[in-house]
Amino acid sequence: MKTDMKCVLVALGLAMSTAQIPFAQSPSLDSLALREIFNAALSEGESHDRLRELTKDIGHRLSGSESATMAMEWGLEWMIHNGADTAFIMPVKVPSWSRGTSAWAQVHFSDGRPSLPLHITALGGSEPTPAGQPIRAKLLVVKNLNDLDSIPDELKKGRIVLFNRPMDPLSINTGSAYGGAYDQRGRGAIAAARFGGVGALVRSLTHSLDTLPHTGSMHYDDEVARIPAAAISTVDASLLAELWSTHPDLEVEFFLYCETHPDVIQGNVIGVVQGNERPEEVIALGGHLDSWDIGEGAHDDGAGVVHTLEALRILQAMGYKPRRTLHFVLFINEENGNRGGIRYAEVMDSLAQTQSAFPLAAIESDAGGFVPRGFRLDAPDASVDLIRASAPLWEPYEIHQFRRGGAGVDISPLKEISPRPTLVGLSPDGQRYFDFHHSAQDVFENVHKRELELGAATVAGMMRLLDLYLPPIH
Amino acid sequence: MKTDMKCVLVALGLAMSTAQIPFAQSPSLDSLALREIFNAALSEGESHDRLRELTKDIGHRLSGSESATMAMEWGLEWMIHNGADTAFIMPVKVPSWSRGTSAWAQVHFSDGRPSLPLHITALGGSEPTPAGQPIRAKLLVVKNLNDLDSIPDELKKGRIVLFNRPMDPLSINTGSAYGGAYDQRGRGAIAAARFGGVGALVRSLTHSLDTLPHTGSMHYDDEVARIPAAAISTVDASLLAELWSTHPDLEVEFFLYCETHPDVIQGNVIGVVQGNERPEEVIALGGHLDSWDIGEGAHDDGAGVVHTLEALRILQAMGYKPRRTLHFVLFINEENGNRGGIRYAEVMDSLAQTQSAFPLAAIESDAGGFVPRGFRLDAPDASVDLIRASAPLWEPYEIHQFRRGGAGVDISPLKEISPRPTLVGLSPDGQRYFDFHHSAQDVFENVHKRELELGAATVAGMMRLLDLYLPPIH
Repeated sequence: MKTDMKCVLVALGLAMSTAQIPFAQSPSLDSLALREIFNAALSEGESHDRLRELTKDIGHRLSGSESATMAMEWGLEWMIHNGADTAFIMPVKVPSWSRGTSAWAQVHFSDGRPSLPLHITALGGSEPTPAGQPIRAKLLVVKNLNDLDSIPDELKKGRIVLFNRPMDPLSINTGSAYGGAYDQRGRGAIAAARFGGVGALVRSLTHSLDTLPHTGSMHYDDEVARIPAAAISTVDASLLAELWSTHPDLEVEFFLYCETHPDVIQGNVIGVVQGNERPEEVIALGGHLDSWDIGEGAHDDGAGVVHTLEALRILQAMGYKPRRTLHFVLFINEENGNRGGIRYAEVMDSLAQTQSAFPLAAIESDAGGFVPRGFRLDAPDASVDLIRASAPLWEPYEIHQFRRGGAGVDISPLKEISPRPTLVGLSPDGQRYFDFHHSAQDVFENVHKRELELGAATVAGMMRLLDLYLPPIH
Repeated sequence: MKTDMKCVLVALGLAMSTAQIPFAQSPSLDSLALREIFNAALSEGESHDRLRELTKDIGHRLSGSESATMAMEWGLEWMIHNGADTAFIMPVKVPSWSRGTSAWAQVHFSDGRPSLPLHITALGGSEPTPAGQPIRAKLLVVKNLNDLDSIPDELKKGRIVLFNRPMDPLSINTGSAYGGAYDQRGRGAIAAARFGGVGALVRSLTHSLDTLPHTGSMHYDDEVARIPAAAISTVDASLLAELWSTHPDLEVEFFLYCETHPDVIQGNVIGVVQGNERPEEVIALGGHLDSWDIGEGAHDDGAGVVHTLEALRILQAMGYKPRRTLHFVLFINEENGNRGGIRYAEVMDSLAQTQSAFPLAAIESDAGGFVPRGFRLDAPDASVDLIRASAPLWEPYEIHQFRRGGAGVDISPLKEISPRPTLVGLSPDGQRYFDFHHSAQDVFENVHKRELELGAATVAGMMRLLDLYLPPIH
């Protein structure tokens, strides 16, 4: 179907109200278009090939790294190749931190028992252990940050603190379980340092019991010492807590070699397809190009990157002429700063203030390349109603969730713009995501081809619906 | 919650009509009970441990094999251990066929190019190649069984026929794609033999492009010769078809060593929990204990087996006192005959005819250990309505599909009984199922612990709902 939907709508004299939108009928032009999009993704899809290039030819892509620059060039090339009218880099100053090649830890016992190695890796942004030397100290194990408040000084001062609260296995939504355990990684080093701790170990944020450390961002504040902080695998964290309960005098020794460098100019990669009816209104779709520096960033967020490129390719290949201007955005620096997302919102906000362009909506894919289950909506009520009214269209694709909240980190700064844009996050099945997340296991081989393709079709289909049916800003 | 739901209902004076069932409220006693079931499966679940035993200590379990007998003993033991009032074996005479240790194939070229090996394995029930020797013949490649009708005799007589129709990648429901390609495996040998073919190769039924042959049942009929038939991997099938298009004179040689033995007495393993209110009405839950003899039968149907055992454990551990009598059934011989399912239905039918017991409902888990998406319903309209009315209860568990048809092979013979029982199949996500199905990759390591646990909770929850709310037979 090469139909320009807006012509059909105009020809039919249809107003853009929820009651009259074509997707309320079945089979509608919309259901046919969605079928065409899914067919294109499943039968001649390129998302899996793109992901192989991104993960294998380029590899992981931490902000500030050379590989992130290579990924920007690669993305720009595919934007043009896949049919963008124009494509460009929006410069962004990003942090630069490197893990270095060495991190290790071990447990020492006072009773002469041989020391045991532990699997750790630096949390992103951590200081190295001081003076290029390991630190060695007695251990304290806690489950919550505020457990530290009530522990006597002599048990926490000078200690290495292990934050050992598992992700809640009872939460069906694994993202919520992650959110419920995240404070340990984000603020554990601050909490430990406040009470004189000399180092922080954080139980890896995964349901999986394995020996993989899962890294991720952590923070310092100006009030307390910047102590080194590492992720420790769930198996090692459980073991260490158990050993400590019977050997409270054990000592942990760990070494981190990592470095913070001056900021670097990199940028968001943006492909543009000009709108035909209301070109001043912009609908964005994106994922983030940067990734953590262990693994290959295949699910996080290689999947979102190739979903974005593939959506562009499919919409162009089917001859879709958008009403609004479409931005296909590969954001930089989601993992440790979100400066790409912030910069994109700043630019869009300044365009809005000069009345030259308005961010109408944005879609983000940053929850993995798993089978799509639905959407997360940060949007005005009318948009939420509109999107929920499209549920029957999605049913053949087993897409059924239309929940509020959590559309995505990269697009979240757009929330502050007035009038408020409609933000939509792709919500894939989450049961396996944290098995791989921020670990060495987040590699191409762990992304399922069909599931990846279904995700690409889903974001392309949502972009088309928003383009056709979101009411104009003015 | 140790509440006996029927007492609550009686105390509240609630009739059992759809309009008044507690699960129409929120949060209801039912939603609390379901939460308790899911918590039990996710926090202290045993399904993953049971699956490890079944797949690693016992291994694959083809009907008639010693390992199938071992699995029956293991299942019986766990029925008792997990709290069945009684457990027994219902004897079933099953077929016995063995693959033997050797199967191979290669392509020979007329131009002196070296021969190429192909990955094949016998289809279940196939005859061996004659006289303990390989067969060698020219090839014919077709996509559909009836393509053979219009092909000249000299191109099909004496040939080895490759049936090479891929599963439809555009079907979102992979089970439908499987059904759409299944005729090649089920009747390919008959179709080829009808036109003088000497052997059949069948493209493996999977979306995945890999070098694994996927076995499965095949049939002969009495009209035509019983020619040997093998599954060939998708990679090899595609290669072979391509080679044949440019080298139509190539020859394929293959060897199968397999044997059909006399039938063996094995049986269904049945655990019983006596009903407290209408003990003559029976609700069954089951999966099949037998599996193909390559891989470990982990998804097919180790998952269904441990779902069944775990549902029993959870319902007993929470003190649930069923209204109806519950049967937990590990069926034998689903893969190549369904004699276990047929026998169970015969027994239930004869009990119904003597008015001593009535099969009210049956639930089957035989679609893998993946994240549960919903249920397949072969049921009277009133039961379908009842189950669909429970949808809000399932929403927190991301369970959303309530489609008609395809509840399961083992329980399907119950359809013939009057009054018609309510049949429900667990419907897990199907995108990955055929990657593993009937192949050497169907092993424990490819089953995800949380996804398996979610499935166990789902069938346990459905069994409880059917027990409480299905209207009585008389």
